[in-house]
Amino acid sequence: MDFSNKQLMEDTLRYFITGCAGFIGSNLMDRLLQQGHEVIGYDNFSTGFKQFLQNAEKNPKFTFIEGDLLDREKLTPLLKGCDAVFHIAANADIRFGREHPFKDLEQNAIATYNVLEAMRINNVKRIAFASTSAMYGEAKEFPTPEDTTLPIQTSLYGASKLAAEGLIQAYCEGFGMQSYIFRFVSILGERYSHGHVFDFCKQLFTNPKKLHILGNGKQRKSYLYVQDCIDAIFLAMENTHDKINIFNLGFDKYCEINDSANWICEQLDIKPELSYSGGDRGWVGDNPFVFLDCSRMRALGWTPKFSIQDSIIQTVKFLKDNQWVLNQR
Amino acid sequence: MDFSNKQLMEDTLRYFITGCAGFIGSNLMDRLLQQGHEVIGYDNFSTGFKQFLQNAEKNPKFTFIEGDLLDREKLTPLLKGCDAVFHIAANADIRFGREHPFKDLEQNAIATYNVLEAMRINNVKRIAFASTSAMYGEAKEFPTPEDTTLPIQTSLYGASKLAAEGLIQAYCEGFGMQSYIFRFVSILGERYSHGHVFDFCKQLFTNPKKLHILGNGKQRKSYLYVQDCIDAIFLAMENTHDKINIFNLGFDKYCEINDSANWICEQLDIKPELSYSGGDRGWVGDNPFVFLDCSRMRALGWTPKFSIQDSIIQTVKFLKDNQWVLNQR
Repeated sequence: MDFSNKQLMEDTLRYFITGCAGFIGSNLMDRLLQQGHEVIGYDNFSTGFKQFLQNAEKNPKFTFIEGDLLDREKLTPLLKGCDAVFHIAANADIRFGREHPFKDLEQNAIATYNVLEAMRINNVKRIAFASTSAMYGEAKEFPTPEDTTLPIQTSLYGASKLAAEGLIQAYCEGFGMQSYIFRFVSILGERYSHGHVFDFCKQLFTNPKKLHILGNGKQRKSYLYVQDCIDAIFLAMENTHDKINIFNLGFDKYCEINDSANWICEQLDIKPELSYSGGDRGWVGDNPFVFLDCSRMRALGWTPKFSIQDSIIQTVKFLKDNQWVLNQR
Repeated sequence: MDFSNKQLMEDTLRYFITGCAGFIGSNLMDRLLQQGHEVIGYDNFSTGFKQFLQNAEKNPKFTFIEGDLLDREKLTPLLKGCDAVFHIAANADIRFGREHPFKDLEQNAIATYNVLEAMRINNVKRIAFASTSAMYGEAKEFPTPEDTTLPIQTSLYGASKLAAEGLIQAYCEGFGMQSYIFRFVSILGERYSHGHVFDFCKQLFTNPKKLHILGNGKQRKSYLYVQDCIDAIFLAMENTHDKINIFNLGFDKYCEINDSANWICEQLDIKPELSYSGGDRGWVGDNPFVFLDCSRMRALGWTPKFSIQDSIIQTVKFLKDNQWVLNQR
């Protein structure tokens, strides 16, 4: 098949987005609608919010279907006539994997299988997939390139995303599909609704005098602003045409969790007393150093506009103005 | 926890084997019983045979339970009091993955999850897992070492085994288990019951004048004799004590499918007319070159006793003497 899809992002096309009411999915959907595309959004509101659909709902080219990816009977017919799928829905709750060991496998791997089957049945050939730096486990190489050595999984979340990537690749080989697999660092920005900035803000808005940090605060992590992430996804899909296209998406710097805590406190103009749970990991399976080599993406001309500090500040502003998000979890 | 399990293979222990009526599972089980261990075998006879249990059934230390790994209610209580699990059951039908896209995910990844959960619930801490060279997809490095670059999956089978490996690793990290992951080339020998030698013999026993070969016959593959494979498994479990222990298991040479066809025909003393389906692959997702770097295993003192040619001849002898196996498929 012809994978030269330069037109894909230029023409008006029909996209299917899973997780359209979530943080990244809803931002991506708004951008596609701005470009004039038709979008069918699918979400079960397990972690997404109706409020994140408000922009999209003003657009006549948007159709929302409430549903679960495990409901194949509902899902499958919806993909009829779609040009491509953005599969963004996930259980992104990496920290609590041990409390419900089936959830990651079900929500990330089996759900991805259901999406792929729906695509196969409806002859939809293109998929973009939100994968994760967590699939590198505790990487041995920093910054970590896409073709680093075979990793050892350290979390059920990472394992389930690795499983989903493998399924997508096998479907591409077996059924002539084309895939874009994006391995994200933690993404920040408007509509952010879980992760350490969320946890810190939730604590500080309740009691600005105290902040408890998981681990020793010296964990090193990279972060990326959500609009920079979406820019990269679109650019990659316009400019790469292999059967399987894999890209790390992160920032070319990292910070310590302590830096992040300081920036958040500065932004809120508070000086809480800090306490630490201790140890070099925030939780079992946490990776103390996440730093991706994004030169493959940068070679396409992509440059993130927001620094890690900028992204954190944007996120704090969003959470301050939208404290209802903090109260939902 | 203490992972120094030198005693594990020396004392009399209670082992649980999944796929105990299959080719590799039944051979492994017979060896464990010979060593004086207690063995609980589990199989659903989806691809296993009652006949392969005949040796074991003479041994009072053997208990057989007919059951499916998807039946968690049946499976879970059986692991109570077991010292370790040999998880050998699988859908090993790599070639036909596209005809039933859920089967590999279900039988290999979800079934492995069920085994891991049964272990977690019963506090069983050790697992040996039969993985596959197919998880390397079309490797970029030959011979392929365990820590080669992150592969692209080319089959649903490979993807499902990669998923199972990731789950096992995440359970080791999350729940303090210890794992031995063995990535096999194709295994040959007594009780062999699927694969190219099976297909060739089935054709030749029906009509010794013709042999149809998938691909161009130039696919290069490595093979290992089943008892050499089991020797390696035991040696690795006696001598390595990390949380996660991964070993390639193959022979340090490879052959062409054409070589294999010649050896089979010589052994049967026939000269059939050969025909080819053509192309450099036997089927979609077939890997034209499989050759593993087994130096990690060899460093423990392991040397396979049977050459590839020996293994093929042993297999042909077995199939000739047990043509009922050919008629079951």
